[in-house]
Amino acid sequence: MRAKFGPQSNSHEEGYDKVTWTTDVETHPPWLRFHLGISRWELYNRKDPNLAQLTHYLATQHILGSVQKKGGTQLKLLISFPNYGQALLKPMKQTRHAETDVNLFYFSDFERHNAEIAAFHLDRLLGFNRIPPVVGRLINVTTEIKEITTDRRLSKTFFTSPAGNVCFYGQCEYYCSVEHPVCGQPHMLEVSLATMLPDLTIAPRRSWRSPWRRSYSRTKLAQWEKDPAYCDTVKQTPPYNQGTRLVDLIDMAVLDFLMSNMDRHHYETFEQFGNNTFLLHLDNGRAFGRHSQDEPSILAPLQQCCRIRRSTFLRLRLLSLPDFRLSDIMRESLTQDPLSRVAPLLSEPHLSALDRRLAKVLQVVQTCQEKHDDVIYNDIEGHDQGPRSAVTA
Amino acid sequence: MRAKFGPQSNSHEEGYDKVTWTTDVETHPPWLRFHLGISRWELYNRKDPNLAQLTHYLATQHILGSVQKKGGTQLKLLISFPNYGQALLKPMKQTRHAETDVNLFYFSDFERHNAEIAAFHLDRLLGFNRIPPVVGRLINVTTEIKEITTDRRLSKTFFTSPAGNVCFYGQCEYYCSVEHPVCGQPHMLEVSLATMLPDLTIAPRRSWRSPWRRSYSRTKLAQWEKDPAYCDTVKQTPPYNQGTRLVDLIDMAVLDFLMSNMDRHHYETFEQFGNNTFLLHLDNGRAFGRHSQDEPSILAPLQQCCRIRRSTFLRLRLLSLPDFRLSDIMRESLTQDPLSRVAPLLSEPHLSALDRRLAKVLQVVQTCQEKHDDVIYNDIEGHDQGPRSAVTA
Repeated sequence: MRAKFGPQSNSHEEGYDKVTWTTDVETHPPWLRFHLGISRWELYNRKDPNLAQLTHYLATQHILGSVQKKGGTQLKLLISFPNYGQALLKPMKQTRHAETDVNLFYFSDFERHNAEIAAFHLDRLLGFNRIPPVVGRLINVTTEIKEITTDRRLSKTFFTSPAGNVCFYGQCEYYCSVEHPVCGQPHMLEVSLATMLPDLTIAPRRSWRSPWRRSYSRTKLAQWEKDPAYCDTVKQTPPYNQGTRLVDLIDMAVLDFLMSNMDRHHYETFEQFGNNTFLLHLDNGRAFGRHSQDEPSILAPLQQCCRIRRSTFLRLRLLSLPDFRLSDIMRESLTQDPLSRVAPLLSEPHLSALDRRLAKVLQVVQTCQEKHDDVIYNDIEGHDQGPRSAVTA
Repeated sequence: MRAKFGPQSNSHEEGYDKVTWTTDVETHPPWLRFHLGISRWELYNRKDPNLAQLTHYLATQHILGSVQKKGGTQLKLLISFPNYGQALLKPMKQTRHAETDVNLFYFSDFERHNAEIAAFHLDRLLGFNRIPPVVGRLINVTTEIKEITTDRRLSKTFFTSPAGNVCFYGQCEYYCSVEHPVCGQPHMLEVSLATMLPDLTIAPRRSWRSPWRRSYSRTKLAQWEKDPAYCDTVKQTPPYNQGTRLVDLIDMAVLDFLMSNMDRHHYETFEQFGNNTFLLHLDNGRAFGRHSQDEPSILAPLQQCCRIRRSTFLRLRLLSLPDFRLSDIMRESLTQDPLSRVAPLLSEPHLSALDRRLAKVLQVVQTCQEKHDDVIYNDIEGHDQGPRSAVTA
């Protein structure tokens, strides 16, 4: 099993950069090389040339099968490619510039295909590498879903709309009805395709309820929204009381604040890496819903714990400099996606919102530093030697 | 019962203009005077000064109660006023300029408060007088619904949205969910208020399935969509084989085509007037959904039967003249509604669509006249002397 699932050193003291990569096996399909490249500390190495091959594969390979993917509340499909590749498809459901209705709760918001794509790019640019590669693609809903699916529950929801477009809605908990159709124009539909992680039988994952999970209620507040000293409790609770778990959670909060994702109720880790491993940033479809407003509560973990990885802090500072402005490098990064030929994946207001929010994150860190001296968690030198004292940068 | 329910002559040969109106009883509230004024041939006399008093009453009277109204598929409320007045409330659910999604079927479309208001004005300008008076109003959802309702099923759907607006969604078949909230800004909401007809125990009504009813299916066509000679059958079928019922239906089709209402599955008549009476044009919330397109199939009754009332035809011709242009008189008429102070009730594209569609109706009549000589049904001289031969105008 280990051979199938990435480089793993017997003692993690060796550090991931000393592991011999097995991703150079040219005969493996790119999705398998991606699986083999997963380490204890990140999903992929950002310099690995396989990354581009993998997204190219998802964006261009012949689609062999399309069925509904169970789990979650909104419609998504599982797409099969030659050589056993698979991807999670999320369809475009609203025009790209549409902002989420101000009266909708985060748990009623649509999922957005471009949010999945943009989240992958943002996570990578932040140096996290914790989101499976996602790529955009224009697919033909007739020939690449309707005509080839073996999923009867899916196929019977296809219809031709009054405008002559081929539409479907699938079966799921929310927005799977003829009132919320997913439609081609008349056949072509923008979708996001996310690389599948190794099968759960090979690489089981553990799901963790986020301590800063929202109430998912119209009326109730979560404990962390009422108790400003909430982090004191979290800091004493395993697994947050040792290792990098707490600062990992704060990394995730920074990512989510930048893209305004309020839907991070759980996160996952690979079981075989135990508690000392990175957090997967899965399921980002509800990010990038609103550019005109920021949601400060997403930063609660940082604000309440006043702690951040040194590497993250340095990266954020870099991305706030004029030459490395986050909006500029995101714009440039997103042009690599095939769908950027149809229209920019994030509109300019969304890109500017990134810069505005980044400034706010740095402001929160500064406010923390004015009150505490253990804000910056030094993860840069020998990050894997267990807990250590935080050092102010 | 007769005294309570409008002027009714013993033999309808007398004609409605000879009936002594009982609507001048100054002590009656305006809604009762409206009920008393209903005749066999129309809901109200357009010159009756009570019309303005009635809409003023609905627009300004203190709201005593608000409960959900059962029946139908979308949310509507029953509003009570002093002196036993009642109105049917439909809330604003989308911005006024929004066009119906091209991929939505007519049976999935939202109901629009401004469509109810505009339909009343249009029906009146066409000389039909078959829609109960409707008026717009800005209401306070907190003090005029939430705080006074006795309807628990309604009141438990109230909530404050993330934007701080007071919202609710009620309980109904379609769009009654937190994903489709009706929201004040933060309390004030635009609604339409339609005068209620006399209670069914006093004035029972008969519901008729329209012969040109749509299939209400994503895939099936109705018989009239497949059979160009469909009208030949209808013409031989009671009650369409005598009196004005067929041309009444065609009047309704003209109204519906002008406002692009595809949702006329049934129509109603007052039972005590038998078959020789006007058709009520109730429930127009799905009109005015799209201005950029026309729906020729709505005109099928006119196109397939090639028959139209002379009075309707003359009115349509008048409204196509530059001095009496339909769009101009609709614009002017709608300014009488209180909500026109908030924003025009129909946007300019919707008003222009009226002129474009009117020209199409007249074109269909002309095409009919080129092929048939019994197109114009002369209803102007002694309309109530039973069936007669149609006369070309």
